[in-house]
Amino acid sequence: MGLPVVGMVGGGQLSRMTHQAAIALGLSLRVLADQQHDSAALVAHGVVLGDHTSLADLRAFAAGCEVVTFDHEHVPGGFVEALEAEGVQVHPGATALRHAQDKLVMRERLAGLGVPVPAFTPVATVQDVIGFARHVGWPLVLKAATGGYDGKGVWVVGSPAQAEEVLASGVRLLAEEHVVLRRELAALVARSPYGQGAAWPVVETVQADGVCVEVVAPAPELSEELALSAQALALQLAEDLGVVGVMAVELFEASFPDGTPRLLVNELAMRPHNSGHWTIEGARTSQFEQHLRAVLDYPLGDTSPTAPWTVMANVLGGPGDADLDRRLHLLFGHDPALKIHLYGKQVRPGRKIGHVTALGSDLFVVRARARVGAEYLRSGTWPAS
Amino acid sequence: MGLPVVGMVGGGQLSRMTHQAAIALGLSLRVLADQQHDSAALVAHGVVLGDHTSLADLRAFAAGCEVVTFDHEHVPGGFVEALEAEGVQVHPGATALRHAQDKLVMRERLAGLGVPVPAFTPVATVQDVIGFARHVGWPLVLKAATGGYDGKGVWVVGSPAQAEEVLASGVRLLAEEHVVLRRELAALVARSPYGQGAAWPVVETVQADGVCVEVVAPAPELSEELALSAQALALQLAEDLGVVGVMAVELFEASFPDGTPRLLVNELAMRPHNSGHWTIEGARTSQFEQHLRAVLDYPLGDTSPTAPWTVMANVLGGPGDADLDRRLHLLFGHDPALKIHLYGKQVRPGRKIGHVTALGSDLFVVRARARVGAEYLRSGTWPAS
Repeated sequence: MGLPVVGMVGGGQLSRMTHQAAIALGLSLRVLADQQHDSAALVAHGVVLGDHTSLADLRAFAAGCEVVTFDHEHVPGGFVEALEAEGVQVHPGATALRHAQDKLVMRERLAGLGVPVPAFTPVATVQDVIGFARHVGWPLVLKAATGGYDGKGVWVVGSPAQAEEVLASGVRLLAEEHVVLRRELAALVARSPYGQGAAWPVVETVQADGVCVEVVAPAPELSEELALSAQALALQLAEDLGVVGVMAVELFEASFPDGTPRLLVNELAMRPHNSGHWTIEGARTSQFEQHLRAVLDYPLGDTSPTAPWTVMANVLGGPGDADLDRRLHLLFGHDPALKIHLYGKQVRPGRKIGHVTALGSDLFVVRARARVGAEYLRSGTWPAS
Repeated sequence: MGLPVVGMVGGGQLSRMTHQAAIALGLSLRVLADQQHDSAALVAHGVVLGDHTSLADLRAFAAGCEVVTFDHEHVPGGFVEALEAEGVQVHPGATALRHAQDKLVMRERLAGLGVPVPAFTPVATVQDVIGFARHVGWPLVLKAATGGYDGKGVWVVGSPAQAEEVLASGVRLLAEEHVVLRRELAALVARSPYGQGAAWPVVETVQADGVCVEVVAPAPELSEELALSAQALALQLAEDLGVVGVMAVELFEASFPDGTPRLLVNELAMRPHNSGHWTIEGARTSQFEQHLRAVLDYPLGDTSPTAPWTVMANVLGGPGDADLDRRLHLLFGHDPALKIHLYGKQVRPGRKIGHVTALGSDLFVVRARARVGAEYLRSGTWPAS
């Protein structure tokens, strides 16, 4: 066929769903997985078992690939640089990826670019924290500069004593103002090496205990002006940082003192992202196909929505043994139009094991369908409506 | 997870696309392929190489599966019966499958059920053919009872001499009247063991040299009455024949002498079918997901269309070396909303190597986009519009 080989480092659900998209493009994703039971390793043909923190393993994996990309941010930046120096096409590259790997680097760069971010400062001692609190008050937020995800590595602290407990962990930290939110949004874009950009509609993301539980596309009652400014910001950032592939810009929707809404950038992710799972059915081009098109420098696909409203709800692992076969059976009977995605992962309480997507013209109904589906798969009981 | 293992016999593009659907359901399709370069064998994790005409290979393959199904009709019926007798869940079962494997068995059964079919008779000698021609005239159609596909095994003969040439091949034949068609349609349905049925909108299929080149969903200018009768006929047939899984009923749209349209059943296929590829993007539930749901006896999914018009065009292999990477590049630039599916197959002239799907509200535009896309991937040249 003469089509390129794309390798993805990481065997999680993002690789799994990228493989689905790769199949349509005539490709077969090569996956570097930790274990043979990783989500993507269960379904991909070209699975290489190896350690993403070993340069030797990364080199061996890259050897058979035209392009290497990632389903997570945990490959050491120096190793990404080393691969690039050896001539491997890595997308996103190390220079861009740093901003998704290190929150302090990201905050400093974005502040330098004039992008609105919460007030922040690096902190090493409780005196640093107390000094910062004089400007932003208590409570404030402490964040691990690297390695956090799904609410892990983020602490809201109300006092110097609480700050000291976090500091005792010894991880590199930054402190941030505790922003009073209206809600969280996400602007998902893609960028190709050629420089083409594409943006999906801005979505609302709903978190519980720091974990994304629901995404509504498009974000309800978001003014066109604010939506366009979020898309423009994300596209501009992708260009400024030299991102190649999909990038999710997680945003806080807050208010100026006069009540005017304003957007602050919270996090960046440079890969397909949970806030974009709705695009599989809800947009003409899914984030997984788009990521492949971007890293291959193909022209990007149409990001138009396929329905007025799309709601994605994550399926978290529930308590006890889950008879998913039975639950699928009953849920399919209950809602024949619900789209279900299971990741093949062992069920553990709170773990993301899948997601469901509902589409339609009545947001109230669509949202209820997604919530009922996700809750039923989690718990095996129908939520009270 | 406790989810079942589904095995599909055959490593073609139907298995390949069924694997994509299986991934979403938390499954990983197990594929019995002839060769490691078969379309599905390139992308599925659980590939078993073996011979689908060997009972030992089929037995070994079935041993790890909760359900066995097919991407083609070429497994000997006796072997399917043997597997069933040994307790393997095979869907569709041998009794149903015979009607997709043997055109004479199918015609006789359908005629017995009162389903409209072209006039037909088994023929072994030129005298048989001449005798039949007294009723239906020349030209008439000779068909191999088994083994034909994509126009192979079908001959339109205009004289006893031409019939003798076909008879000389020694294959078991039936003769049919040469129906004067308005066009060809297909009614795609699914049926589960529980007995649930689901029908997609009836489509128009366009053939060239006996090969399907284009499918338009829904069939343009088909009266609601005729569309409903085609769906009802297909659902009833699925029940009468005990089909489990997807069944495509290929139909001739012809006319009574007074000009009133009438439908005749041409062929049956009991598996995902080329006339249903449009459902991947064009229906809420694709034929591949539905086939899995049916063979697993899950409740069936919503078959509603996602756009007013969907057109699927097959990509056939063109002459010479095809630089598909370059063609993809340019086609994506030309039409960012076109959905492209490549099967990973070696390019040979006339071979189905992929398909493209366009969706929208203006049939003229949608059809042109699909045709341009398929022709460009085939030939590397833009067709004159």
